[in-house]
Amino acid sequence: MPKVKFIPQNREVEVEAGTTLLNAADAAGLYIEGDCAGKGTCGKCRVKMIKGGDAEPTAAEKKHLSKKELLGGWVLACQRKIEKDSIVEVPIQKDAHSRKITLAGGIEKLEAEPVIKKTHVKLDRPSVKDQTADLERLLGALGKEDLTVKPRELNALPKMLREHKFSVTATISGNRIISFEPDDTSDQMYGVAFDIGTTTIVGSLLDLKTASVIAVSATTNPQNIYGADVISRITHANQGKEQLQQLQNKVIEAANDIIKDLLKKTKIARDRIYEIVAVGNTTMSHLFMGIDPTYLAPAPFVPVYSRALDVEAAEIGLKINPAGRVTFLPNIAGYVGSDTLGVILATKMDQRSDNCAAIDIGTNGELVLKTRDTLMACSTAAGPAFEGAQIRQGMRAAAGAIEAVAYKDNDIKVTTIDNVPACGICGSGLIDAAAALLQAGLIEPSGRFFNFEENPEKVSDHFKNRLRRGKTGIEFVLVPAAESDIGEDIVLTQNDVRELQLAKGAIYAGLMILIKEAGIQEKDLDQILLAGAFGNYVSRESALTIGLLPQLPIDKIKAVGNAAGDGARVALASKSERDRAVKLPHQVKHMELSTRLDFQEFFIEAISFPKI
Amino acid sequence: MPKVKFIPQNREVEVEAGTTLLNAADAAGLYIEGDCAGKGTCGKCRVKMIKGGDAEPTAAEKKHLSKKELLGGWVLACQRKIEKDSIVEVPIQKDAHSRKITLAGGIEKLEAEPVIKKTHVKLDRPSVKDQTADLERLLGALGKEDLTVKPRELNALPKMLREHKFSVTATISGNRIISFEPDDTSDQMYGVAFDIGTTTIVGSLLDLKTASVIAVSATTNPQNIYGADVISRITHANQGKEQLQQLQNKVIEAANDIIKDLLKKTKIARDRIYEIVAVGNTTMSHLFMGIDPTYLAPAPFVPVYSRALDVEAAEIGLKINPAGRVTFLPNIAGYVGSDTLGVILATKMDQRSDNCAAIDIGTNGELVLKTRDTLMACSTAAGPAFEGAQIRQGMRAAAGAIEAVAYKDNDIKVTTIDNVPACGICGSGLIDAAAALLQAGLIEPSGRFFNFEENPEKVSDHFKNRLRRGKTGIEFVLVPAAESDIGEDIVLTQNDVRELQLAKGAIYAGLMILIKEAGIQEKDLDQILLAGAFGNYVSRESALTIGLLPQLPIDKIKAVGNAAGDGARVALASKSERDRAVKLPHQVKHMELSTRLDFQEFFIEAISFPKI
Repeated sequence: MPKVKFIPQNREVEVEAGTTLLNAADAAGLYIEGDCAGKGTCGKCRVKMIKGGDAEPTAAEKKHLSKKELLGGWVLACQRKIEKDSIVEVPIQKDAHSRKITLAGGIEKLEAEPVIKKTHVKLDRPSVKDQTADLERLLGALGKEDLTVKPRELNALPKMLREHKFSVTATISGNRIISFEPDDTSDQMYGVAFDIGTTTIVGSLLDLKTASVIAVSATTNPQNIYGADVISRITHANQGKEQLQQLQNKVIEAANDIIKDLLKKTKIARDRIYEIVAVGNTTMSHLFMGIDPTYLAPAPFVPVYSRALDVEAAEIGLKINPAGRVTFLPNIAGYVGSDTLGVILATKMDQRSDNCAAIDIGTNGELVLKTRDTLMACSTAAGPAFEGAQIRQGMRAAAGAIEAVAYKDNDIKVTTIDNVPACGICGSGLIDAAAALLQAGLIEPSGRFFNFEENPEKVSDHFKNRLRRGKTGIEFVLVPAAESDIGEDIVLTQNDVRELQLAKGAIYAGLMILIKEAGIQEKDLDQILLAGAFGNYVSRESALTIGLLPQLPIDKIKAVGNAAGDGARVALASKSERDRAVKLPHQVKHMELSTRLDFQEFFIEAISFPKI
Repeated sequence: MPKVKFIPQNREVEVEAGTTLLNAADAAGLYIEGDCAGKGTCGKCRVKMIKGGDAEPTAAEKKHLSKKELLGGWVLACQRKIEKDSIVEVPIQKDAHSRKITLAGGIEKLEAEPVIKKTHVKLDRPSVKDQTADLERLLGALGKEDLTVKPRELNALPKMLREHKFSVTATISGNRIISFEPDDTSDQMYGVAFDIGTTTIVGSLLDLKTASVIAVSATTNPQNIYGADVISRITHANQGKEQLQQLQNKVIEAANDIIKDLLKKTKIARDRIYEIVAVGNTTMSHLFMGIDPTYLAPAPFVPVYSRALDVEAAEIGLKINPAGRVTFLPNIAGYVGSDTLGVILATKMDQRSDNCAAIDIGTNGELVLKTRDTLMACSTAAGPAFEGAQIRQGMRAAAGAIEAVAYKDNDIKVTTIDNVPACGICGSGLIDAAAALLQAGLIEPSGRFFNFEENPEKVSDHFKNRLRRGKTGIEFVLVPAAESDIGEDIVLTQNDVRELQLAKGAIYAGLMILIKEAGIQEKDLDQILLAGAFGNYVSRESALTIGLLPQLPIDKIKAVGNAAGDGARVALASKSERDRAVKLPHQVKHMELSTRLDFQEFFIEAISFPKI
């Protein structure tokens, strides 16, 4: 079998001849970014073959790579099959998590009210006059005769008691003892809150005694190899049990990697983590639990379950205390998951009496509206434009991404994440760019680029060389090749603007449906909460300029950070909050947008940009 | 590696050179009977080497086998190590279960009150107007929103619903759905009751709808390879995790063999068995659950747990419905197990208002006494004499065992099980033999054989050739070699009588302690129940003659069959009875005999036989 070595990561794997480079990289534990799940249509999985790359380029490679690139050894990892020993250079992944907001939530202080209890007891030694069994002796001392225990845990007890002077700490979860530990360990209790995103997985280690977040770690969701969006993943899972298992394995492995990292950072013992609480969209929830999500994809988009699902850590291979309890918070509907529930939980918007909306834009867009009379949620198929997908030079919010674009002094200036040369444009940059071009009059309210060929005199000198006709229509050069990191111009295309219009139109229309259903008007909104990494980085001004949000005073719009992840944290930290999370879905009315004719009306109205 | 073929079973295994024949047989799935766990002291594991047996006999073989036998290829399986390809003849095991009473209990009609529930529902199909998740849809139809379900089971639901017109049957155990089945299967619900004996395991398949026993199967407890008694097994388990695992594996494999046989007999599908209820002594209970029984052996004989322990079938490898519930009924003390609890449960002696004693003689002897004021239990170290161990030609109650001995017309006559030529003597035969010899004046009340050498004239002609001096003292020929199946005389030795005296003395003394504690006298007993296979076959007259039981009118002594197994059956069949079983240990006072000085007094008094 041919060997493939990946540099600079220096990983080597042996694979069957005919395996694609993408799959070989996966086997080597590397993730090569792409949006199309290996179909060859996005052209993003570029790698450079140092050795073994002398096969003819495929049609897809010819389409996405320049002649110069092809000659230089560049290939698409999803297209190139390995036939002999090869060496492949994988451009180092820009750290998708350099933006700290992906990790941190908006809540400063969590309430400590642990769900698990640890109790230390010192027992009387047995004698022929007191032959009480070990377990009954312990339960008697705890004053809790009704607790259950499984043989696996129970088996540790007898030797432990006799080797530690009958001094033992029991960890109780619900009505069950999940762990016995020698001597007094009652001050050691930890849990991990997970935000399982389609793209990124974030884990926070909490000291449950104090409800403090003591470490955070994140990684790319490695299910990505089966496609960037939930529909691709569902399609893969639908192929059979093995494929479903693959998807579950990927996310569990990633969670285990995070746990390992958290333990390394904090020097805490693995078996002192007794709980995991996770949030994620409904597809992520199903895949995490190994449940077939097939029927989420077609109408009527029915989940297999909505309630919170509990399992033992060992049952799904999560490497904490084997009897630790893993709870995935409940979902609200097929496309309104526990991540949205987490937003409600963390922001406590369900307890507000004014009119408040929350918008969480991830790979999908979820909306929540709370008024005095109702609490509603919906999801809109915003598409992944805000995450850089479908955008010609789109990328996630990582170093080198254009994150801000300003129209100032009759010029258009860009800023990149980490201030390094630009290599693409992320969601907030996209919105800013559109807003700036609208303000500069280079994009019309309809979304069309200004027809500079017909009216060249109306284009200011600053933009004469930047507004031009490209292969697919008019485009605007944000960064010229000489200043970019990729040796070519970074541009905003007409098509990019159209994708943005569709995305923002969908979000806006969804919000309008909720507002209509609640019987209020846009102006009645007292606050709009922007949740998630996107919400935190997007310019509120630009969002208003392009009409992503209703025209409200800017101080009514507030970014709340990773509120979904915060939801997992508060539910992990506090029994009352977890109980509240379990009951929340019953209070939230789900609006299904796909069948509403009025959605189409709002959508079409919202596609245009507001007039400046 | 040398190969060993066992005939006539026709099984072949390859083993490491140096493996004993006993272990090779175990690897081949054959059980060769013996009492000493391979120590070479009991001489019972005789097999004949047809090929490969030319090594020098060991000291143990020389001791236990005659020259003729050694020349004929007979060896002790525990002594002989395999160095080359061999063929070994294993005498066909006499079926230890030819006595039907081992299988059948004394209860004719069980009450059907199933613990599990099966409910069939036909659900409305989901639509965009009713996007309720599958599980919530089902729970709504069942009217039980609070039920839990694990991902493993849940994952079967979505496809099943859509392939079977949303018609499904849910099986509910406690507050959990353990199984989904397509269409209406609510009339199919089965369970297995196990009596896990140290020597024999019996399983009964019950139709839980009707509480009828539809098949019974039994097998030797294959833990036997680690010793015949519980102390040998505990000693083995104490060596380490691997050894404990071996013991658990053995009993679980045997239980699975029984389940397989029950399924074969009844053509029932494996996953329609949803429950197992087991009884056994405390050591068996610990080993079945994989719990270290180490501290049961030394004083103060403390179990790890006493309560009923519940596990999922899949957790311990029992092959029924993987989510089926397995309950081992609670024990009362280290040496009074759930088998004794089963006797109380089945006989309902706890609900009686008169004075009633129960005696269950297995490898140990357990006693229960119920009076108006108290319910007490104890165990006595009766030793295994009643099961044929420690008796020179002792054997279990199988075909060819002398089961009855009568003194009649000045002669002593024997009867064997199945009326085939005798090959040994079982417990009931031993008691009968002693009683007959007492009646014939050949044994004195002290237990000594009549000194025929000093007083030859006092021996009747019938016995002149049968009472003789053997290698170990005086002995009585029960069956001469010419009529026996083994080509040698079958005798009762002075040592055999001594073993019997110790055993019956221990039982009697235990009963006297209970009687004393209860503040009654022997004559106050209204009934004595004899439980178990032994109790069913022992002659009540002989038991009275040798003083195993108090001198009561014979009609006050009643055999109740395998009451321990009946206990498992009633607890399987009925929720009320299972609840009663769980509470019973709190009502039973355990008497620990080992520290009582008065036990020694009663014991010494009870060693002698009553005067005829």
